[in-house]
Amino acid sequence: MGFQKTVNQMDLQDFRPGIRSMAEFGDKMTMACMEIGSEKEDTGHQHPFDQCGIVLEGKIEMFIGDSRCILEKMDSYFIPAGVTHGWKTFDVPARILDVSAK
Amino acid sequence: MGFQKTVNQMDLQDFRPGIRSMAEFGDKMTMACMEIGSEKEDTGHQHPFDQCGIVLEGKIEMFIGDSRCILEKMDSYFIPAGVTHGWKTFDVPARILDVSAK
Repeated sequence: MGFQKTVNQMDLQDFRPGIRSMAEFGDKMTMACMEIGSEKEDTGHQHPFDQCGIVLEGKIEMFIGDSRCILEKMDSYFIPAGVTHGWKTFDVPARILDVSAK
Repeated sequence: MGFQKTVNQMDLQDFRPGIRSMAEFGDKMTMACMEIGSEKEDTGHQHPFDQCGIVLEGKIEMFIGDSRCILEKMDSYFIPAGVTHGWKTFDVPARILDVSAK
């Protein structure tokens, strides 16, 4: 990617069922543009690295520990390492720009 | 920050001359919403960690190694560790969401 114009409209590839993605990998972090299909859910997981991002299109509900929020375009999130988090989408896909440390 | 609604409009604090910022710090990464004033320039630097982000408002020219691009709202960048990069702004401020590994 390097520079990516209009990342909210870029072509994505199948990543896993219900999720399309295009990622760039560095030594210490991965940046991925991801589109999560409608009516999908991750009921919660955690990992030993920080994660953050911003919603580019659509709507997604996320929880980070005890905090829960419905995020829309231009809303951001920051998930500290080790904190349980999850998400669910609604009737439209959500597109996010997500960054994970390694 | 945790969740931040409309990060493109959030209140920022003076960070250094010409730059206002609000950051969240994790173990392995920092996410910062930064507003860079008009007509500013960083002629180039490098560091041993990856950096990436997205333009939220305004316009900024960046170079990463030999690549150069004028970035506007919804355009993203990824700077691999160790690669010289810099930027300049034009007649309006640029607001970016920037993520650095540690």
